Amino acid sequence: MPISVAVAGASGYAGGELLRLLANHPEFEIRVVTAHQNAGSPLGAVHPHLRSLAELVLQPTEARVLAEADVVFLALPHGASGAVTAQLPDDVLAVDCGADHRLTDEDAWAAFYGGEYHGAWSYGLPELLLDGGAAKQRDTLAGVTRIAVPGCNVTAITLGLAPGVAAGVVEADDLVSVLAVGTSGAGKSLRPDLLASEIMGSASAYAVGGTHRHTPEIVQNLTAAGGAGVSISFTPVLVPMSRGILATSTARLASGVSAAEVREAWQVAYADEPFVHVLPAGSFPRTSDTLGANTALMGLAVDENAGRVVVVSAIDNLVKGTAGAAIQSANLALGLPETLGLPLNGVAP
Amino acid sequence: MPISVAVAGASGYAGGELLRLLANHPEFEIRVVTAHQNAGSPLGAVHPHLRSLAELVLQPTEARVLAEADVVFLALPHGASGAVTAQLPDDVLAVDCGADHRLTDEDAWAAFYGGEYHGAWSYGLPELLLDGGAAKQRDTLAGVTRIAVPGCNVTAITLGLAPGVAAGVVEADDLVSVLAVGTSGAGKSLRPDLLASEIMGSASAYAVGGTHRHTPEIVQNLTAAGGAGVSISFTPVLVPMSRGILATSTARLASGVSAAEVREAWQVAYADEPFVHVLPAGSFPRTSDTLGANTALMGLAVDENAGRVVVVSAIDNLVKGTAGAAIQSANLALGLPETLGLPLNGVAP
Amino acid sequence: MPISVAVAGASGYAGGELLRLLANHPEFEIRVVTAHQNAGSPLGAVHPHLRSLAELVLQPTEARVLAEADVVFLALPHGASGAVTAQLPDDVLAVDCGADHRLTDEDAWAAFYGGEYHGAWSYGLPELLLDGGAAKQRDTLAGVTRIAVPGCNVTAITLGLAPGVAAGVVEADDLVSVLAVGTSGAGKSLRPDLLASEIMGSASAYAVGGTHRHTPEIVQNLTAAGGAGVSISFTPVLVPMSRGILATSTARLASGVSAAEVREAWQVAYADEPFVHVLPAGSFPRTSDTLGANTALMGLAVDENAGRVVVVSAIDNLVKGTAGAAIQSANLALGLPETLGLPLNGVAP
Amino acid sequence: MPISVAVAGASGYAGGELLRLLANHPEFEIRVVTAHQNAGSPLGAVHPHLRSLAELVLQPTEARVLAEADVVFLALPHGASGAVTAQLPDDVLAVDCGADHRLTDEDAWAAFYGGEYHGAWSYGLPELLLDGGAAKQRDTLAGVTRIAVPGCNVTAITLGLAPGVAAGVVEADDLVSVLAVGTSGAGKSLRPDLLASEIMGSASAYAVGGTHRHTPEIVQNLTAAGGAGVSISFTPVLVPMSRGILATSTARLASGVSAAEVREAWQVAYADEPFVHVLPAGSFPRTSDTLGANTALMGLAVDENAGRVVVVSAIDNLVKGTAGAAIQSANLALGLPETLGLPLNGVAP
Repeated sequence: MPISVAVAGASGYAGGELLRLLANHPEFEIRVVTAHQNAGSPLGAVHPHLRSLAELVLQPTEARVLAEADVVFLALPHGASGAVTAQLPDDVLAVDCGADHRLTDEDAWAAFYGGEYHGAWSYGLPELLLDGGAAKQRDTLAGVTRIAVPGCNVTAITLGLAPGVAAGVVEADDLVSVLAVGTSGAGKSLRPDLLASEIMGSASAYAVGGTHRHTPEIVQNLTAAGGAGVSISFTPVLVPMSRGILATSTARLASGVSAAEVREAWQVAYADEPFVHVLPAGSFPRTSDTLGANTALMGLAVDENAGRVVVVSAIDNLVKGTAGAAIQSANLALGLPETLGLPLNGVAP
Repeated sequence: MPISVAVAGASGYAGGELLRLLANHPEFEIRVVTAHQNAGSPLGAVHPHLRSLAELVLQPTEARVLAEADVVFLALPHGASGAVTAQLPDDVLAVDCGADHRLTDEDAWAAFYGGEYHGAWSYGLPELLLDGGAAKQRDTLAGVTRIAVPGCNVTAITLGLAPGVAAGVVEADDLVSVLAVGTSGAGKSLRPDLLASEIMGSASAYAVGGTHRHTPEIVQNLTAAGGAGVSISFTPVLVPMSRGILATSTARLASGVSAAEVREAWQVAYADEPFVHVLPAGSFPRTSDTLGANTALMGLAVDENAGRVVVVSAIDNLVKGTAGAAIQSANLALGLPETLGLPLNGVAP
Repeated sequence: MPISVAVAGASGYAGGELLRLLANHPEFEIRVVTAHQNAGSPLGAVHPHLRSLAELVLQPTEARVLAEADVVFLALPHGASGAVTAQLPDDVLAVDCGADHRLTDEDAWAAFYGGEYHGAWSYGLPELLLDGGAAKQRDTLAGVTRIAVPGCNVTAITLGLAPGVAAGVVEADDLVSVLAVGTSGAGKSLRPDLLASEIMGSASAYAVGGTHRHTPEIVQNLTAAGGAGVSISFTPVLVPMSRGILATSTARLASGVSAAEVREAWQVAYADEPFVHVLPAGSFPRTSDTLGANTALMGLAVDENAGRVVVVSAIDNLVKGTAGAAIQSANLALGLPETLGLPLNGVAP
Repeated sequence: MPISVAVAGASGYAGGELLRLLANHPEFEIRVVTAHQNAGSPLGAVHPHLRSLAELVLQPTEARVLAEADVVFLALPHGASGAVTAQLPDDVLAVDCGADHRLTDEDAWAAFYGGEYHGAWSYGLPELLLDGGAAKQRDTLAGVTRIAVPGCNVTAITLGLAPGVAAGVVEADDLVSVLAVGTSGAGKSLRPDLLASEIMGSASAYAVGGTHRHTPEIVQNLTAAGGAGVSISFTPVLVPMSRGILATSTARLASGVSAAEVREAWQVAYADEPFVHVLPAGSFPRTSDTLGANTALMGLAVDENAGRVVVVSAIDNLVKGTAGAAIQSANLALGLPETLGLPLNGVAP
């Protein structure tokens, strides 16, 4: 019998991508889709690219409606999940793509988000190294019923830096990461700066100077990986593409560590991962190679002159950065094969 | 009487941009345009956007031909300028947009470029602070007859970081800069990775790990500005736009320096500059705001948690990054008003 | 003494482009800039690309304020100009970039726009052929004080087809035109379909089936050029670029007309035009070659099998399609050289 | 037992897309991949987006190698297929994505392609109406062993116009079609006009005036559909996107036909099609809604004033335009379910 799923916030970009992936998942059956403003519309009017789901009608986002499903994926604005999930039965698997349940530190929540703190859920980044590599986050996900999906920028940076931090081959206290990010990460918000005329042919930075809300989540992850005194300067740069994150992350090389030891740390960390791949020396990823796929690609170099390791990691922000990670984590929680229903190959060119 | 000018390498992107700007310069008259493969063609066949120059015929790139002009702008591949300029009369003003005459350190030339070293010329970045801000590069350009125009990435990073380095409000020994760069910086080369199908919808890094040839030039500039032990990790990221560089540069905040002192350093450095502008706190530039203009815009933030200053600087790689800088420097060398013929306003959206 | 100018609706894309061009006009001095929502803001906050005008403060859009200037350029939403211009003194030169005063046929206005009809003004397309080529629209503009600037799509199609229609070498009664248009033509409207995420990587048609408001204006122009029974199927296609219109227009070849006679019609029509150029046989324009310029480029072919002439015409919708045409027409009305302050060369690549 | 397949020309864009789709096909097993210049390379070096196939090694394109498979997909430059396929055993199913076997008229081949004529194969457009709608091309494909896949522009135009032509609600003798096309249709050719710097921010037409090689194939299809005296003016416009074709096609409305009869013709034609969908009145497709999917979407309007029907059709040139059509046709030839392994949902935004 298929597992029934609901998607809350189905009219947004993350919701649409969840549906695109769920439509191909062999064990899941989409039973309920909900939205706020678009409730009552058929999905075909909101997401004309989802032909196979065109007749599904959006319902209002209410816990009562969502609770009809075995699994509830939430793709709501931050702040909105908490109220809904509080009313879901305990045995429903709730997977939240928003920020509400990511941070374990209430002070960090207060400082970067504010408003009511709803507590932390199991963190949906299976490949995250824990305790210097002694374990991975995957090991903690079997059987859980509450999962918080990481932020998309966080995933790109964490996957890029965690192996070196966990292995101690780089210093964790002066990390610098600059991301080229596509526009879909900002959602369908009607902001003048997101108009096509403003974006095409231009690059611009935002949340400069340590103000981005994803910052404490990166610190939380790299600390869990084993980093001491983790500190990061992180700047996202909006570039003219709909999807994709390319994170260029650097860390000071730890004293006495060779380039070979650096590469070894990353290769060991991801040797058996189905979705995370370290490219050969001299190769670096393009975001388009991950488009539509749950894949993270990364390349690695040691800059001996600057004394820094540089890691370039690429993901599709809507897949490995959001919807794919949600499904991957749900697979693990439910005891299904981790890769079920998740594309490995990107759509390029 | 107008000053006659020649453009060598007129069929490339830098050559085309020189011509676009020169066509509007009130004191210059374009007399000679030269090319290699396209010699014999009218300019209209090579640069259909340059309507006012469509009938000019490209001649072969030979010193004899170029020497007919009072001023020679060279937009040749690196390695090609040296041979040509050696044959130009001493009283011709030669302005080289290539790399051949930028580096004062022959070892750095050998390490990053190789081949014959042709010596360093006067460096064409008028706004570059010297000796902790005691002078500017502008002061050295009057009357010179040999000018080396900076690399485009170098200009974006140098202008961004020099004020802090010169004033000592940041440390110069662990700089990190990541650039979002448009494709025209790579020229018209027929490389598969520069095809539109590969570039659109994608971001990718290159020259990762300290291998980019612009690295020693940045060190040279920031050392001239007063930096001690300058070291930089610098990664360019190719993004889907034809023009523009957005450099996100960070430096460790010097001990005991306040955010106000940081801002002060930048504001003082560029207070009277016609082409370089520091945006108000909280504002950061878009590359499109500089498109077609000789303008550099920058925004500044202090990340107290990370202990780093972050500077975001935007230029048009073909204007302030190449052709505009060449003309600005030529203006100074010839005793003309520095801003003559150079657009301040970008073409946006 | 400079001629003082005002720009109403200065915060939009057309207003911004008027200002960019006016800032370089040797006879005009920008005295007043007005806006609706942004009144009170400095221009630098609204148009960060207009560095030379950054300190100008936007005033409210009122006739009293605008009347301080000798020339008033209006870049307001359609329907808004009429009320304002009714209060301007007769001796002020008013140049309206909106649709309010373009149509001579009140019924066409009612059918395609609706609302109060404000009457037709002198039509600001100087190159428009009249009466089979016996005259041009330019001849009617000297000394006028009320000018209606054509719609941008209209300009691309009219310039493309008028020579053949006027000369009778094509039939005017079954024209077909499909346009690739950039997003800035839709203005800064906060519409979901204009978000960058929706536009990049996609093409889509709108106003399909003869519903576009520019349709009667095209018919009006081609009838003025001498066409009998003018009828056109016209479809705009939104493509991922900020600026530019590429119109592919076809007309049935008139009976017994040779390909040479076809080309002759276009070449004669535009032989002496400073801004409109017919490319050699086999060459066709790119929109980027007109970016930022007041130039229209076109290429021409006869499809003998299909019995149709195909004309491909390119303009920058914000320049020759709007702001440039406004200034060109104002130059003519004021007895200034027609080309004053208007760029011929595009910004490419 | 899985059906073994080979892909010849696997290093190009069409070859890559075949592999992306084949990797998810439940009945096919990729056994052989071949290339010309890249023979010997692992697929991961050529198509880094195809992670699941990264280790496959490219072999030289020889009939002997290809004949190891049950099904051979050919994605070779036109002119190259003929020589290879002549050597394939008769019982191998050969599916050619090139032009070599599309045209039934040897004179048309000579006029538009030239070189040796290899004869026509079964035509791989299952939805093509035949004989006024009495049959569909699908009916002819069971059991065939030689299939010619249509050209991508041809598919967009044919699917758009065939219903009206077959039903006689439009005239077939003065069709006009203008296409916005993405760059991947031109392949990986190292042509200066395909460089990203030239394409981004620009639109341009090519093969203007009836010279495009796809022209006779369109005439062949619409004649097969039942059109009399089929004649078409067809102009492709290159726009800044990697994938996608948006065809705007118009035909004169037949005498006495109502708008309702027009819509009826299209709805009846595609009512049961899994991959071709007619959108509701007033809706028109975006190419991004078909990205990565084997779906064709179309919208329809009657322009009463112009007396023309306008059809806007969207496909992904690499999927429904090439690789998807190839697999769909192979499914039919082999007696598999037609939709097997083919995505219905696009990847958007």
